[in-house]
This record gives sequence, structure tokens and C-alpha cells, in this order.
Amino acid sequence: MVIAVVGLGIIGGSYCKAIKKHTRHTVIGINRTQSVAQKAFDAGAIDVIGAVEDIQKADLVILCMYPGACVEFIEKNGSYIKKSTIVTDASGIKSAICPQMTELAKRFGFTFIGSHPMAGKEKNGFDVSDADLYMGASFIITPCGAAMEKVDFLAGFARQIGFGTIKVATPEEHDRMIAFTSQVPHVLACAYVLSPSCPNHKGFSAGSYRDVSRVANINSKLWSELFIENREPLIKELDILIENITAISNAIKSNDSQELSELLERGHRVKQDLGE
Amino acid sequence: MVIAVVGLGIIGGSYCKAIKKHTRHTVIGINRTQSVAQKAFDAGAIDVIGAVEDIQKADLVILCMYPGACVEFIEKNGSYIKKSTIVTDASGIKSAICPQMTELAKRFGFTFIGSHPMAGKEKNGFDVSDADLYMGASFIITPCGAAMEKVDFLAGFARQIGFGTIKVATPEEHDRMIAFTSQVPHVLACAYVLSPSCPNHKGFSAGSYRDVSRVANINSKLWSELFIENREPLIKELDILIENITAISNAIKSNDSQELSELLERGHRVKQDLGE
Repeated sequence: MVIAVVGLGIIGGSYCKAIKKHTRHTVIGINRTQSVAQKAFDAGAIDVIGAVEDIQKADLVILCMYPGACVEFIEKNGSYIKKSTIVTDASGIKSAICPQMTELAKRFGFTFIGSHPMAGKEKNGFDVSDADLYMGASFIITPCGAAMEKVDFLAGFARQIGFGTIKVATPEEHDRMIAFTSQVPHVLACAYVLSPSCPNHKGFSAGSYRDVSRVANINSKLWSELFIENREPLIKELDILIENITAISNAIKSNDSQELSELLERGHRVKQDLGE
Repeated sequence: MVIAVVGLGIIGGSYCKAIKKHTRHTVIGINRTQSVAQKAFDAGAIDVIGAVEDIQKADLVILCMYPGACVEFIEKNGSYIKKSTIVTDASGIKSAICPQMTELAKRFGFTFIGSHPMAGKEKNGFDVSDADLYMGASFIITPCGAAMEKVDFLAGFARQIGFGTIKVATPEEHDRMIAFTSQVPHVLACAYVLSPSCPNHKGFSAGSYRDVSRVANINSKLWSELFIENREPLIKELDILIENITAISNAIKSNDSQELSELLERGHRVKQDLGE
């Protein structure tokens, strides 16, 4: 099949490389900045440098741009897409774009299925894209009313290029869980490194510092959009988090080692019960 | 030289294994539970299973117990220790025990130098101890008035068994930095996994969840002691953290994407400036 990947950053670039590594599909790479597309071509990650209208040749279109940009791209160029084509995205939020994308799919006649590859790095751009980024990672599908056989087809494709778990969810369920699993850690990492102690950590730090601070090296424009588009579930999780930190902090403030120990033990048990 | 390691959990066990791997020193292993000492002996991690009074044979004593237990151990058994001996600990807090240990050292005539090996795992006990746990890790020394040559000797020993950076600090400086680099991430991890969303994370999570939640698999008794003993610096850091999370949360609540983006960008720049 012919696959068009639109947006050749870390996510799109890694899709291209994984497809070339694991399949014989033809990859058309489409990117606003031509030098990046050229780089992808030179690296063998794509077979063809495409123009926007080349999405008409694709059986599968993977949109790897900011959420808002995905919608804009389809509004503008959706008429090029064949009716038999599946369009998916790679956005970290779903409720904010799935209804619009489903509407656009109806208008232009193609099938839209939302998806979210659960992998990334703390750096961005084609240069850090990686054929193995998705190996064993979760692939979340929000079917948005698409026919089961199309959903199965997309799931099969994801498995083919290396994804592990395939999880089917509603956009709302996806967003609620992602607020917890991905967005809160990104908020936390930024909040953490804003401590005046942070610049002096070297020599005093080990794995705990490294792990919590890792994703603070954030793409602030992208994540601002993701956070605001997922406002309600994220605020709810942040309120819960602040409440739980405050409970532990209060136990420390009042020298209540029994209460403190019980709170920590509850955390310990959650991990134990998960087998982690 | 003869080294007595008191307490054969992950920290003490890793000391023994690293010493046997990198040096020809004789290791006396002392542990309350004899079956663990036997296991360490069978694993070749120690040369001799020692009784408490065998610390009299040691040129270096490394106390790898809970902070309070270190002080108690020396109060009870300090008279066995030779005057030429260096005693160090491995506690994650320093202000709470260094003055008492220095006092005890004066009373019994040996030299006390506080130290903190900056490494660990989210599991405990001799079974997870590792000859390479300290490879390249920071070794923080709080000299507590010991002669420079003794401090240099301890630093040389640490380098010999694999530590990377050697950092000399006052107990107060140590505790202030550790509150940020190590204790806050442990509080955070527990607070994080107490979200009702946590038990359902599988299939929706990736590296961010894994990294922030990792140390929630905590030894609640040990860390309660460490937190309460380091109450003031830790509370200060937790207050700062809550303030910073709240600032980000408020920007999201009020849909203020410019403020949000600026806060995230500040986090990003801290990491960039540190070259991380």
C-alpha cells in the first residue's frame, strides 16, 4: 500500500523509518520545510518527497502535526483524499479533535480513525526519529465510529511496524487516562525544575532526579496546546496530585510518622498490586 | 585493610560486592539476621561473617542501617572501635545524625566522616545488591571536622570501588540538596500513584508514567524516618513544588496559553542550561 506521512518530526519520522524497516509499503513524506523532507529521503526513511496533493495517492494517511494543524490540514486538503483511504493522526489528545475530524471525514468521504502512539523522547525533530521508537509501545485507537474492519486493519498495521499493546478507547477515556499517564508527569517535571535548588543539583543527584526532571526538556508550544485542549481531565488530575502531596507534606509538618508511613505504604501497595 | 560493613541490605551488600570486585581488602559482614550474612558469605560478597565485637578488627567501618539505628549501634558498640579507625555511614540525611556521631567519635576516639552513596534501587535487601550499583555514582562526604587526610583517604576508597563524582558538603548543604534531588521525587511518586486513575494505566502509559512512579515502590518505614528527620528543607521544597504546579494549573484553568507556555519554557530552559 501507499502511505502518506504528513509532518516529519520525531513522530512522523519514526513512523516512516518503522514502515521502511518492517514492511514493503511505499512511503510518501510530506513536510512544510523541504530540507527536512530531503533529509528523510536521503536517510531512506521515505520513498518519495510528496507535495500536499500527493495524499490522493495514499491508502493510509498519517497526520503527525500539532492537533490544531491536523484539523486545518484536512479542512484545506481533504478533497484530495480517496474515499477508500483511512486517515489517522498521532495527537496526544482526542476529544478536542476527533469530532471535527469525523465530521471532515464524512464531508470528504474517507474514514477517520484517531490514534495515539505512546512513545516519544525528550527531544524533537526528524534528527531524533528512530525506527525502533514504537517497538513494544502501546498504540491507542479511538475508532470514532469507523467500521470494525477498518479499525482492525489499522491495528494490524500498528502491530506490523512494532507496536505492542493495542488499546481501543473512546476519546474521553483516552484523554482522562493521558492526563494522568503523560500530561501530569510533564507538568510535574517543569514545576520540579523551577525550584531554585535545581541549577545546583550536580553531584547531589541520581536516578530520582533524572527520572522526574527528564521530560522538563519540553516543547512548550506543543504541550501548552495539549494541556489547554485537555483542560478538564488535566485540572482534575492536578488537583488530586496537589491534594496528595499536601497530605504527605502535612504529615511531615506535624511530625506524624504514623500517618506519613501509612500514606507512603498506600503508594507502595498501588505499585505492588500493579506488579511494578 | 579490613573493612566492616554493618547491615547487609541493598546498600551494605553493594558495598561488600564492590569492595570484593575492585580491591583486595578483607570484608567482615555484620548483620542482625544471620541467614542474610550467610547468604552474603555464600555469594562471596564478604570474607567473614562477623559478630558485633568484630568491628574492633576493622580499619574502616561502614554503617548501612537506618539513620537512627546507626547512632544506636555506635552508642552501644563504639568502645570496640580502634582509635585509628574511620567510621562512616550511608544515611540519606546528615544534619540529624552527624552531630551525634561526631560526639560519639570524640567519646570513643575514632574518626567519624559522614557519607552518602547516591545510588539505590526501587527494591531493598541483599538479594538486589549489586557490585556495580555505585559505578559512576556521586559520593557525598560530610567531613564533620575530620582531618583532611582522612577525608582524602575515604574519597580515594570511594573512587577505588567505582564512584564517579566526589562531593564534599556540610550536613546542612547535603540535606538541603537531597530534599530536592531525592526526597521530593519520592514524595511525588507516592502522591502520583495515589490518583484513582493509576490502577487503570496499563495500555495508556509509557516512559513518563514509568519514570515518575518508579520510586513509589518505597520502603515506607525508612523513608518516613528520612522525611521527618529532614523536615525543614523538605517542607520548603514541597511548598515550592506545590506553588509551581499550582501556577501551571492556574494558567491551564484560565486558558492562558501565553502564561502557560512561558512557565513551560522556563522549565525547558533550566534543563537546557544544565545541558540535560
